[in-house]
Amino acid sequence: MDSAELAELGQQLRVDSIRASAAAGSGHPTSSMSAADLMAVLLAHHLHYDFERPEHPANDRFVLSKGHASPLLYAAYKAAGAVDDDELLTFRELGSRLEGHPTPRRLPWVETATGSLGLGLPVGVGIALSGKRLESHAYRVWVLCGDSELAEGSIWEAAEHASYENLDNLTAIVDVNRLGQRGPTRHGHDLDAYARRFRAFGWHTVEIDGHDVDAIDRACGEARSTLGQPSVILARTLKGKGVADIEDREGLHGKPLKNADDAIEELGGVRDLRVRVHTPDVDRVLHSVPGGGLDLPRWERGGRAATRDAFGKALAALGTARGDVVALDGEVGDSTRAELFAKEHPERYVECYIAEQQLVAAAVGLAARGWVPYASTFAAFLTRAHDVIRMAAVSGAGINLVGSHAGVAIGQDGPSQMGLEDLAMMRSVHGSTVLYPCDAHQTARLVATMAGLDGVRYLRTSRGDGPVLYGPDEEFPVGGSKVLRSSGPDDRVTIVAAGVTVPEALAAADALGAQGIPVRVIDLYSVKPVDRDTLRRAAEETGCLLTVEDHHPEGGLGDAVLDAFVDGRPVPRLVRLAVTSMPGSASPQEQLHAAGIDAESIAVAVRLLVEQAIAP
Amino acid sequence: MDSAELAELGQQLRVDSIRASAAAGSGHPTSSMSAADLMAVLLAHHLHYDFERPEHPANDRFVLSKGHASPLLYAAYKAAGAVDDDELLTFRELGSRLEGHPTPRRLPWVETATGSLGLGLPVGVGIALSGKRLESHAYRVWVLCGDSELAEGSIWEAAEHASYENLDNLTAIVDVNRLGQRGPTRHGHDLDAYARRFRAFGWHTVEIDGHDVDAIDRACGEARSTLGQPSVILARTLKGKGVADIEDREGLHGKPLKNADDAIEELGGVRDLRVRVHTPDVDRVLHSVPGGGLDLPRWERGGRAATRDAFGKALAALGTARGDVVALDGEVGDSTRAELFAKEHPERYVECYIAEQQLVAAAVGLAARGWVPYASTFAAFLTRAHDVIRMAAVSGAGINLVGSHAGVAIGQDGPSQMGLEDLAMMRSVHGSTVLYPCDAHQTARLVATMAGLDGVRYLRTSRGDGPVLYGPDEEFPVGGSKVLRSSGPDDRVTIVAAGVTVPEALAAADALGAQGIPVRVIDLYSVKPVDRDTLRRAAEETGCLLTVEDHHPEGGLGDAVLDAFVDGRPVPRLVRLAVTSMPGSASPQEQLHAAGIDAESIAVAVRLLVEQAIAP
Repeated sequence: MDSAELAELGQQLRVDSIRASAAAGSGHPTSSMSAADLMAVLLAHHLHYDFERPEHPANDRFVLSKGHASPLLYAAYKAAGAVDDDELLTFRELGSRLEGHPTPRRLPWVETATGSLGLGLPVGVGIALSGKRLESHAYRVWVLCGDSELAEGSIWEAAEHASYENLDNLTAIVDVNRLGQRGPTRHGHDLDAYARRFRAFGWHTVEIDGHDVDAIDRACGEARSTLGQPSVILARTLKGKGVADIEDREGLHGKPLKNADDAIEELGGVRDLRVRVHTPDVDRVLHSVPGGGLDLPRWERGGRAATRDAFGKALAALGTARGDVVALDGEVGDSTRAELFAKEHPERYVECYIAEQQLVAAAVGLAARGWVPYASTFAAFLTRAHDVIRMAAVSGAGINLVGSHAGVAIGQDGPSQMGLEDLAMMRSVHGSTVLYPCDAHQTARLVATMAGLDGVRYLRTSRGDGPVLYGPDEEFPVGGSKVLRSSGPDDRVTIVAAGVTVPEALAAADALGAQGIPVRVIDLYSVKPVDRDTLRRAAEETGCLLTVEDHHPEGGLGDAVLDAFVDGRPVPRLVRLAVTSMPGSASPQEQLHAAGIDAESIAVAVRLLVEQAIAP
Repeated sequence: MDSAELAELGQQLRVDSIRASAAAGSGHPTSSMSAADLMAVLLAHHLHYDFERPEHPANDRFVLSKGHASPLLYAAYKAAGAVDDDELLTFRELGSRLEGHPTPRRLPWVETATGSLGLGLPVGVGIALSGKRLESHAYRVWVLCGDSELAEGSIWEAAEHASYENLDNLTAIVDVNRLGQRGPTRHGHDLDAYARRFRAFGWHTVEIDGHDVDAIDRACGEARSTLGQPSVILARTLKGKGVADIEDREGLHGKPLKNADDAIEELGGVRDLRVRVHTPDVDRVLHSVPGGGLDLPRWERGGRAATRDAFGKALAALGTARGDVVALDGEVGDSTRAELFAKEHPERYVECYIAEQQLVAAAVGLAARGWVPYASTFAAFLTRAHDVIRMAAVSGAGINLVGSHAGVAIGQDGPSQMGLEDLAMMRSVHGSTVLYPCDAHQTARLVATMAGLDGVRYLRTSRGDGPVLYGPDEEFPVGGSKVLRSSGPDDRVTIVAAGVTVPEALAAADALGAQGIPVRVIDLYSVKPVDRDTLRRAAEETGCLLTVEDHHPEGGLGDAVLDAFVDGRPVPRLVRLAVTSMPGSASPQEQLHAAGIDAESIAVAVRLLVEQAIAP
């Protein structure tokens, strides 16, 4: 296309953005209009993408980090022939693929769900990392950002990581329209303020007029030819560009145009230009997936091991069996034991340093490229990535998260390092799986199993040694549990434990048994989904469930048990032991006792309960 | 102190860090030793602080952002005469004030809990903001950072905010010891890599040898005399400095020294230097607290209003009545309605732009200075600050968080904008209060009430209009609820609702009543703590509770109800209606219906339940 045609295409994208938003009665046309020329040039001249084969491995990847500009994205799809005009006008309707913010659940051309700002670039870094380091393939990743979202720390975690990994296959295009939602941004049209920041972080920068199609074209070319570092194109634009009444004006964010027909006329009317998008001309160099058998580590039964050690060893073994497993670390691999993977498979180990948002976002990007990522850090620090995890679920991304140093059982380091909210966080994620093993063999098996699940998978590991309770061939299905102690229907109470509280529950059960109080002990290693059948049977046979967990009372194991009983059936009596006070520094065993979740506390609670049940 | 004495003080801080860690058998001596000279010079020459009057308003504020270097902090306290040597050696013991990571819950000289990295600087920004903008007072804020934590995005949110607000009363000192936990940092000893970044973000930078006490002294002086922008001192240091065996060596993070006695001897032995810390010489200009009566907004009963509007209006009224209320916005004040406060009290409105970690951290910093902060953004985006919120609870900080646009009821914008995990997140925070009003008067009252609570308080608001159900003088105690429909013991089922599901529950109750099925409806506006008495009475009288919530099933209202029944008492039958599928775009009413939480779905569930109960 020549310059005039590109400009015309830009106008068409504006008009279609206005039309889609007008049909919906909501949406973000003004934020689409500012970036229309950027999108037009990218689509017509620089993006290599086969819309008929979105799975084509050599396709470039486009991420709309400013996800609210979805009308522009859908207008571009129309210009590329991927959606028709009728569908464009279903924007934001119930059942439409064209949602308010784009998601890959609905549209095959979307790499990752956006709409929570500042996340498109970190995920783009993950995708570019795959292209650069793991696939050795020449596709490019283009990320269209807003200027407001550059205030998010996640953007600077991404900026740091991209330059550290020399991701010259990554280009960010920033639509600097100077207006956020409620008013002007901090830096307005001061492109150099942004350029200074990106340059300091090691990026190549280009500053342009974002409505000059020739300048955009040159900038994209410059980005493509820049080697050894990522590029950012900082484009000065006007929000609502092209319609005098709304151009560069405050107070019009996220609002359809009042006079859409007049605006469309002012923009030259409806067009139907079609772009023949360049298709990629090379096939992918497939990443090799060696087919070695899975040889999980083994421990001596009756010995002791930490579940974090089991995680590290099992992940290393899984990496040997599967070439598609990638491990990501938040600069604590010596603690989480992810470093055991690094030693055996350094080429598939990504050090993300202390930047948990980028850690998880990189996993999302890698999952989008077909890898099976395991991102690990302390359970407590995964809270830093809560929004990234939430959005991963919106994407339907298949990622494995592993949080170590769970609970008060870590001991002296104190509450800042204790994951005491992680089960609540991970359970509340849509479609998630939450696993909390108590021994080494269980951990190893679950590490391997989680690779094959859908959605966000979470494994919680512990710092200290615990007994090896299971044999190496025991199976641990997701949604299952293990009944570790039982006298059948004679059991007076069922203790439901997981992780570090399982050995405590067993010790309590043994002490109670010696006192003539038989109790059942369930190892509920699958916290979500829970084993409804076993819990219901225990409820029927023992009448009472006592849950004990190294977690705050809200949202963890105690609440999870409820999942078996919220369909109107009779509910057993329930007692919940959990961490209710703020811990300080103390030894692991002192911590468990202070929190009232050690064997002694469990036994006391059971005795109280049994006495209550005997009383009238 | 002259240079030689300062150097001696540095050695003493090293020795005491080693001694404390050796006594504990854990801790981070090497990370303390790298920063010992920085701390010595700061303490002896630049910090203005009255250890006997930690509440003194004109005290400088010191934040140990690298919280794991707590031995150094406690060694400094000893040198200042604030703790004695015996107490120093209780480090990390059960019950000791000297925890693994410092917290203000235990020690009066600690401003904020640290230990999760990258948070000390953002909180320091909040404190400095108070000094600069709200108190007009001359104290300085000194933040000692590690180099590893500069990878956290939260640091760059803070860097941006500090320069935007021209916080020349803020100095960050970065202990660039080049070694993180598992190995070298990205930039090693390349001070200029960090300097470029901070300069680009608008900071004054000074690069020094962090073991040259004269250079440190000059740098602190330069920072103090730099006007109009914050300063950062980038100090090249060696981890484990002063002990040849461990100096600048990998693999020694977070480990006490093997040969502590030899190391102490190498450092010149135990000393007992005392520092006479400069005390502040001016008294605080107290921020004025006008005593106007609280005049909360009123609505016509039977009319309609959105709870987000009620929040904005009530907050503005509260700001008129109380001069200590400060509002903070994440660049969505037009949506959350925080802008209504901004219009009336612009001097107490802090625009944090799209940087939710800084938003909440600034609130923590302001709370430390005695303000009553209200930080608001979309409920979904508060997940971005989950770790900051968690650490606020460790600090015991009194902050108000308000999340708007909760649930699928927002309609067309889709899942990225829907808070569907916020109740789970906020309930799991230690000591938190979680409020979810359904009408305008309830919202207004709760906005005022939450100001007086302890700990982290959360209010969830809704986007769309709802009926005004209550009168302006109705009271809503925390931990209470309202029974909105009841026929007494005849009620067959109790519907427990909150927020947008309350009107749905009422409509269902009316429809069911017309069909001869009397049901009770409880408005459970206080989600944490819950009204145990009312729930227990409902359980006894109706035998079954049906919860209905615009939230994922895990960790929200349905789980909260369990808090009334986990002491071993009989539990009622339970049914939980919640958002179990991934929403797309649709109108608010379509969303509620698709999620199965509208009046029709509630009525269907109740009828099923009543039929079940009738069947044998």
